[in-house]
Amino acid sequence: METVLINGSWRASQSTGSFQATNPTTGDLISTLFPVSSWADVDEALDAAHAAFVALRSVSVEQLASFLETFADLIQADKETLVKLAHEETGLPVTPRLGDVELPRTVNQLKLAAEAARSGSWALPVIDTKANIRACYQSIGPVCVFGPNNFPFAFNSLAGGDFAAAIAAGNPVIGKANSSHPGTTKRFAELASQAIEKTGMPKGLVQLIYRTSHADGERLVGDARLAAIGYTGSRNAGLALKAIADKVGKPFYAELSSVNPVVFLPGSLKERGPALVEEYVTSGLMGAGQFCTNPGMLLLVESAEANAFIDGVVTKYQAAAPGTLLSKSVETSLGKSVELLTKAGASLLSGGSKQPGGRCAFANTVLKISGAQFLSDPHVFQTEAFGNAVLIVVCKSLDELVSSLKHLEGNLTGCIYSAKDGSDDSMYPAVASELAHRVGRLLNDKMPTGVAVSPAMNHGGPFPATGHAGFTAVGIPASMIRFAKLTCFDAVRPERLPDLLQDSNPRKAWRNVDGVWTNA
Amino acid sequence: METVLINGSWRASQSTGSFQATNPTTGDLISTLFPVSSWADVDEALDAAHAAFVALRSVSVEQLASFLETFADLIQADKETLVKLAHEETGLPVTPRLGDVELPRTVNQLKLAAEAARSGSWALPVIDTKANIRACYQSIGPVCVFGPNNFPFAFNSLAGGDFAAAIAAGNPVIGKANSSHPGTTKRFAELASQAIEKTGMPKGLVQLIYRTSHADGERLVGDARLAAIGYTGSRNAGLALKAIADKVGKPFYAELSSVNPVVFLPGSLKERGPALVEEYVTSGLMGAGQFCTNPGMLLLVESAEANAFIDGVVTKYQAAAPGTLLSKSVETSLGKSVELLTKAGASLLSGGSKQPGGRCAFANTVLKISGAQFLSDPHVFQTEAFGNAVLIVVCKSLDELVSSLKHLEGNLTGCIYSAKDGSDDSMYPAVASELAHRVGRLLNDKMPTGVAVSPAMNHGGPFPATGHAGFTAVGIPASMIRFAKLTCFDAVRPERLPDLLQDSNPRKAWRNVDGVWTNA
Repeated sequence: METVLINGSWRASQSTGSFQATNPTTGDLISTLFPVSSWADVDEALDAAHAAFVALRSVSVEQLASFLETFADLIQADKETLVKLAHEETGLPVTPRLGDVELPRTVNQLKLAAEAARSGSWALPVIDTKANIRACYQSIGPVCVFGPNNFPFAFNSLAGGDFAAAIAAGNPVIGKANSSHPGTTKRFAELASQAIEKTGMPKGLVQLIYRTSHADGERLVGDARLAAIGYTGSRNAGLALKAIADKVGKPFYAELSSVNPVVFLPGSLKERGPALVEEYVTSGLMGAGQFCTNPGMLLLVESAEANAFIDGVVTKYQAAAPGTLLSKSVETSLGKSVELLTKAGASLLSGGSKQPGGRCAFANTVLKISGAQFLSDPHVFQTEAFGNAVLIVVCKSLDELVSSLKHLEGNLTGCIYSAKDGSDDSMYPAVASELAHRVGRLLNDKMPTGVAVSPAMNHGGPFPATGHAGFTAVGIPASMIRFAKLTCFDAVRPERLPDLLQDSNPRKAWRNVDGVWTNA
Repeated sequence: METVLINGSWRASQSTGSFQATNPTTGDLISTLFPVSSWADVDEALDAAHAAFVALRSVSVEQLASFLETFADLIQADKETLVKLAHEETGLPVTPRLGDVELPRTVNQLKLAAEAARSGSWALPVIDTKANIRACYQSIGPVCVFGPNNFPFAFNSLAGGDFAAAIAAGNPVIGKANSSHPGTTKRFAELASQAIEKTGMPKGLVQLIYRTSHADGERLVGDARLAAIGYTGSRNAGLALKAIADKVGKPFYAELSSVNPVVFLPGSLKERGPALVEEYVTSGLMGAGQFCTNPGMLLLVESAEANAFIDGVVTKYQAAAPGTLLSKSVETSLGKSVELLTKAGASLLSGGSKQPGGRCAFANTVLKISGAQFLSDPHVFQTEAFGNAVLIVVCKSLDELVSSLKHLEGNLTGCIYSAKDGSDDSMYPAVASELAHRVGRLLNDKMPTGVAVSPAMNHGGPFPATGHAGFTAVGIPASMIRFAKLTCFDAVRPERLPDLLQDSNPRKAWRNVDGVWTNA
């Protein structure tokens, strides 16, 4: 059985059982056994994380940045092993996806995080020289990251966005491996251990647990030694954990579900229908639709062009080979969602059933409803069908479409396609104002699947897309604020101030001094 | 019976009962009857708030700022009436407190909020020109403010800090009047109505309800038409409402309780003991101790100077006339807390009982425990005794004091007094690092009761001081972020961008453009 990483040691888990991951390309179990940790493992990890947090007070920002960079370099050098492990556990293509896109992105995120930690500007220092009051964000304490199944590198509990943000903000991380890729996560933990040794960081800075019982998971989240949680995963499990954290006023940054509505205004389809079919299908089937920002709901106004668009999508969905899904559980849950939608009255235009054979796969699926159907039960028709399925809502009129938007839950993204000749411009404001209020990111004439690592990115949005619409999970430095607390220093003697708040600004951070932003 | 303000009309409440406020100076009921609203009132207010939120989309920032300024001017002009009403309902002194301090502060906050709305810099615009991704904070939707009893002006549901922040960020406000000063709150609503008419704002921008049943209050908080809540008040009521909001992922900004620990390091007492007695007592008894940031727990290391300090405090507490408390309910709850603390083993050095007569008042109270006692039950000894009572913790050693700090819950503030000659400097880091992690604001050689309205202020802190340690309730513009959502605009056509994100920067807001802060 594989070992866990607790307090700097790889040691046998005090386990209550074991589990295995599945190779989704074959449907076969992978032989490696991973432990289900007991509370004893978790308890030790929490103690070590707390000790690491205290030890971090005497670690310089330069050392922290150097840890992140060393870890990034080790990942880069280990590319072949990581890609092989992740492909076996997730079925995601070795190239370009894992090796050429996701791994470089992961390395880049860690390096950007290092740079952000070094500069300090992420902490938004504010200085009122007249009142001698100074404030900035500071580390919050040990963070537990529950990573998702769909990005074994870029959102991995021990290498991805939440990890990079939490560490760069000065916090130890306990990684809870996603059960569909424990081997990949273990490899990251091994590289992180090496980086810890090389850079002399506290040994509890990075720890790894694979799985616990639900009860121990809840106990972990509620434990006073843990300061915050980053969670990306299923809505039900997330809400159960969130309730525990909420009760003790602990930040629980959750990404729970999103159908990512896309509105095609009439002029856009008239102007470039076939191109939009192509653009949509590429995005919709990318990674077998297993993106948090997958465009899962299309809204159109009925017309000949709308029909042609739908026919085009159906043709392409039928022609494309269904991609491999991440796990049996994704396949099963996709089947359930599609069944729920059809039972509620959606017409099945294509697909609708699992693919034969052992491989985890589901036929590319297109569902259709009218705007009236949507309005009759907006809740059920917003059921997320995570994977290669889409629901097309055909509205009678633009008014009906706008009414439909008013019933949308919070989403990560919302897209509006409109004609380039301005013929949709009069409709845009009504659509955009309803949509923008309900999404974290509004796009024009662009699919939502790409989530650039930009300081201006918002990978967030109103509930249930996330638990708080004021924060982003992607985009360094903004994502770091989640794992920080605001601390104000009132009349604190100059030599006792954190360097970010000292008059001399030794790190040349951007600071708001008496209302003016300056890095002097 | 007084009327409610719903959708721009002063009309009779569809009430389920009535209540009266008490004049705490005499203990007599004030004759005016205020309604307890039924769900019908709340439901109408929510509809009107939602309509106002939609209407606000076509209101200019200039108009919004002008509303805030007009309201501020009307308050200034109405000073005499407001001060008279508030004095009758709260017992707070007409001068200097209400007329010369709190009213000017309230007017100033509204004007600062107007200025912040106008500039737009509060929204922290971030622009990535290369990727053409742009983000900023935007209004979130209707906000309900539950104001506290202790600041009838500066934290009033319809004129105070939360109100100013929510409106300036572009949101309508439903004010739930604090039941101890409904008349004052009604007067603010009248002035706000006048300002709405004068500046042509949507009529549902500001609405007033006095009280509801607990069940209707919870229904209000959970209602989908409401976007966020600002709550300052009792811990139990706040936690019940917070649980409802958390369940639907809605921000609930709560200020719940805080004992505001003050550490006097040995050298400070040696150097200037008598002066510190004076400084502490002034702060501790200010407003009869009814400040959120009242220094309710003092931590000392045992010594002759510590004993002299305690004797000095007791003497002054006994000599000072007990101030009037805000209500019978404050008096009762203070009595209960003191009883709980003494039952747990605290020695009563002074006070401990309510004052005779009808006036709401309690003897100035000093309680003492040892560090060992604190460590034996840190939970019970952190019971907030809101009012003119203080708990002094006398530790055997600095180590014991630092251990005690490790058991502190989250607090709004934490103070450290140390000698000016440097003799305490070696002890400072251990004390400060434990304290700073657990408070929103760390002070040196200064009492916490003053909460300056500064952009660098943090009136916040870890749970249970507040519900999220990343936000402040005081300090414009920072407090506005609470009532906003982050929205990203990805490839949105230039003419469709909010003005804050347009290349031309028409409002000359401070923005982070490609990593550089600029207002060009």
